[in-house]
Amino acid sequence: MTTKRIDVDVAIIGAGTAGLTARRAAKKAGASVVMIDPGPFGTTCARVGCMPSKLLIAAADAAHHAHTASTFGVHAENVSVNGAEVLARVQSERDRFVGFVVETTDEAQEMGELIVGRAHVAGDGLLTIDNGTEVGYNSLVIATGTIPFVPPPFRGLEHATLTNEGIFELEALPDSLLVVGLGVIGLELGQAFHRLGVRTTLLGVGGKIGPLADPDLLAHAREVFSAELDLHPSYELQSIEPLDRGVRVNFVDSTGRSRSEDFERVLMAAGRRSSLPKLGLDNIGINADELGGYDIDPDTLQLGAAPVFVAGDVNGLHPLLHEAADDGRIAGGNAAVFPDIRAAARRTPLAVAFSDPQIGIVGNGYAALDDCEAVAGEVDYGNQGRARVQAINKGKVRIYAERHTGRLIGAELFGPRVEHLSHLLAWAVQQGMTVETALSMPFYHPVVEEGVRTALRDLAANLKRDEAIKCAVEEFGPGT
Amino acid sequence: MTTKRIDVDVAIIGAGTAGLTARRAAKKAGASVVMIDPGPFGTTCARVGCMPSKLLIAAADAAHHAHTASTFGVHAENVSVNGAEVLARVQSERDRFVGFVVETTDEAQEMGELIVGRAHVAGDGLLTIDNGTEVGYNSLVIATGTIPFVPPPFRGLEHATLTNEGIFELEALPDSLLVVGLGVIGLELGQAFHRLGVRTTLLGVGGKIGPLADPDLLAHAREVFSAELDLHPSYELQSIEPLDRGVRVNFVDSTGRSRSEDFERVLMAAGRRSSLPKLGLDNIGINADELGGYDIDPDTLQLGAAPVFVAGDVNGLHPLLHEAADDGRIAGGNAAVFPDIRAAARRTPLAVAFSDPQIGIVGNGYAALDDCEAVAGEVDYGNQGRARVQAINKGKVRIYAERHTGRLIGAELFGPRVEHLSHLLAWAVQQGMTVETALSMPFYHPVVEEGVRTALRDLAANLKRDEAIKCAVEEFGPGT
Repeated sequence: MTTKRIDVDVAIIGAGTAGLTARRAAKKAGASVVMIDPGPFGTTCARVGCMPSKLLIAAADAAHHAHTASTFGVHAENVSVNGAEVLARVQSERDRFVGFVVETTDEAQEMGELIVGRAHVAGDGLLTIDNGTEVGYNSLVIATGTIPFVPPPFRGLEHATLTNEGIFELEALPDSLLVVGLGVIGLELGQAFHRLGVRTTLLGVGGKIGPLADPDLLAHAREVFSAELDLHPSYELQSIEPLDRGVRVNFVDSTGRSRSEDFERVLMAAGRRSSLPKLGLDNIGINADELGGYDIDPDTLQLGAAPVFVAGDVNGLHPLLHEAADDGRIAGGNAAVFPDIRAAARRTPLAVAFSDPQIGIVGNGYAALDDCEAVAGEVDYGNQGRARVQAINKGKVRIYAERHTGRLIGAELFGPRVEHLSHLLAWAVQQGMTVETALSMPFYHPVVEEGVRTALRDLAANLKRDEAIKCAVEEFGPGT
Repeated sequence: MTTKRIDVDVAIIGAGTAGLTARRAAKKAGASVVMIDPGPFGTTCARVGCMPSKLLIAAADAAHHAHTASTFGVHAENVSVNGAEVLARVQSERDRFVGFVVETTDEAQEMGELIVGRAHVAGDGLLTIDNGTEVGYNSLVIATGTIPFVPPPFRGLEHATLTNEGIFELEALPDSLLVVGLGVIGLELGQAFHRLGVRTTLLGVGGKIGPLADPDLLAHAREVFSAELDLHPSYELQSIEPLDRGVRVNFVDSTGRSRSEDFERVLMAAGRRSSLPKLGLDNIGINADELGGYDIDPDTLQLGAAPVFVAGDVNGLHPLLHEAADDGRIAGGNAAVFPDIRAAARRTPLAVAFSDPQIGIVGNGYAALDDCEAVAGEVDYGNQGRARVQAINKGKVRIYAERHTGRLIGAELFGPRVEHLSHLLAWAVQQGMTVETALSMPFYHPVVEEGVRTALRDLAANLKRDEAIKCAVEEFGPGT
């Protein structure tokens, strides 16, 4: 194998969302660039993430609507789900979305700006690629994403196990599915398969459901989801063993009942891990701390003091497409002008889970609120007018404001049309709106946004009463 | 009949949305009040407007979803609409909404603050009520709403004609329905009845569809609605005559074809007229101008220089529930403190039609743009990602900005989930956001809000190119 060497201003490991926007930003700044990626091309979101999951959910919604139409006086007989058709639409639409990305990577390859291969950091300013190429760089962008994590007890079940990387390749729906993990992926896909008629059990740990952190909303979400799904956010695994077809799992469910059940498939959704430790960064003197973390500046995305920038899911900051795209722009731009780098203004954080009801986190949510410095206002969607009209009247929203200024700082949402309500609130937070200003905005009638108004009014009243939340330390702290 | 006399600070004619909020505002300001209304009680919105129409549309959506589920691989056989069940849900849910309003009017009656009767302005500071009561007032709030308008050719068809006041009382769906008028009411209800299986023809004049004014969107909406509905925005009536059961109508449709067809029912949705001319205002020296208009200050709602304030639909400004509620607050507050009245800050105008695709007008829309002083940006939802995932990928949105500042001033929207997108844009307009600031806000993925971002990017590019719209006068004016 002869060694070919390429020298560029900016080398980018990874040609996903962050890598592609990094390339664009670096080129715009006048840098020469090359991306290195072994493929498959097409971004995590388009190939195995947001897009195919939303397509599957759209089919699940259709089944759910057909089953519940009688609420409105509309009757459908023999509602059936044709799994092959469902999956064929998921795959063909996904392929269309992936196609747009692949056009860009193809073009990059034609321009000599994409090497198909796996990159290793070999030394300062040097990557070796597993196809024998060497790449010399002035700055490096790492945008290698994450890989699914399979906890030890679930290893050795590969014949039955799927992750988000394989599940959208199925040609038929399984008869039964065990979902391990109640993060966004487990919750969205588990509910979708359930609604498509697959016997599904969803297992999670620590009581968590999706991205929710507010204890009030978590309790409410547990109740609502448990009414529809065989969902256990605090299960205990006793054993799991392979069968000829599928697995047998023994576990204690959230109600304390011991269960032994067989499932054809297991969806592993117990988290994803950064690919950062595998890149050879120790060869340039960069090592993880004792917790496995790396020193990444969230404002510049620089890794320590090196000419290295970490963008997208791999940096562990906000594993979301729109953040990955922003990361890429920041990292690519800074890589091109290193050492003259700058901190970039970030958007107000926003995360959405497309379960039903949907979940939204605006700002950094409940977890990030300072003790006793925030006030909350809430609405229960159980009898909200517009939601009741459409029979989507489930959920609860809590909005948070700064105690002394009344400025909106975030929200956690669980309810109807939350993908939209979350945008309204995230924009309001980013604008620095106070509760009072928000209440001066138009609210049409009848809309679910009026529920947000109810929560804002509650918030205004609680601000007046100075009813701060998360004051437990003071109220029940040591010595009381 | 003995005459009873009541003297109050503020008399309010009408106990609908505007009247009820006027009462609250006037009382809060320390005034003694009385409302006069002949009933039925319960607000136009809750009884015969926004709420029952949204309930009917929810059933129509359910039927539409069941019929189109196969797009996703979900099959429902023999989808049937049980008209009696559909209408029973509409009526029972509507009664529940009305019930909350009636609680308030009942309470007012118990407090002696509601007279059930029809009020007539008899002279300065004096109302006579048709139950024999006289009401002396210092200030008057008129909140009497509107009444459906039936154009001359359609009179004498009462046996077959329905308006929004009667249509929600039906116990069965008609076999066929002629909808006269393509405003919001005609469009929303016509499409809903069509989707519930009623043979429906929708007729309008002047090419208008709902509240749209932007010619590009109007053309697109005509195309999209015409693909689903027998819809004719520029029809010409030749004759309409009563049959034993229903009517026979002869008309030329939008394609120029002469048609003669029978319909069981006619929904008159050709507009509503202010009840202002019927109140006896001439007895206090207030008369309409030659066009039938009254001199109402939109900022204070004062009528001429009199101690009279006009709130809600009757003032002809914004016949929408949320505006009526604001109107009531302004009119009631000003009536209580007259002559020390003040102009109130209004919210950014926002109107939504719950057709499918939905229609939204933010700000005062296209019609209010100054010639050659605005720039537009647009998005076509035909291939927008999230909309395509859900197979709701129809429509187009245009956003307008001030030519020299880039400040957002309004939008017209026709597309998916417009009830939500309209709020996002209306809040942005009211905040005085520029296009650039809007583009710095978070957009999740995949969401229909990303279509708004596409339109904003187009707008930014058109601002850069200084491509103003509505410049026709200059381009093709006299002499060119």
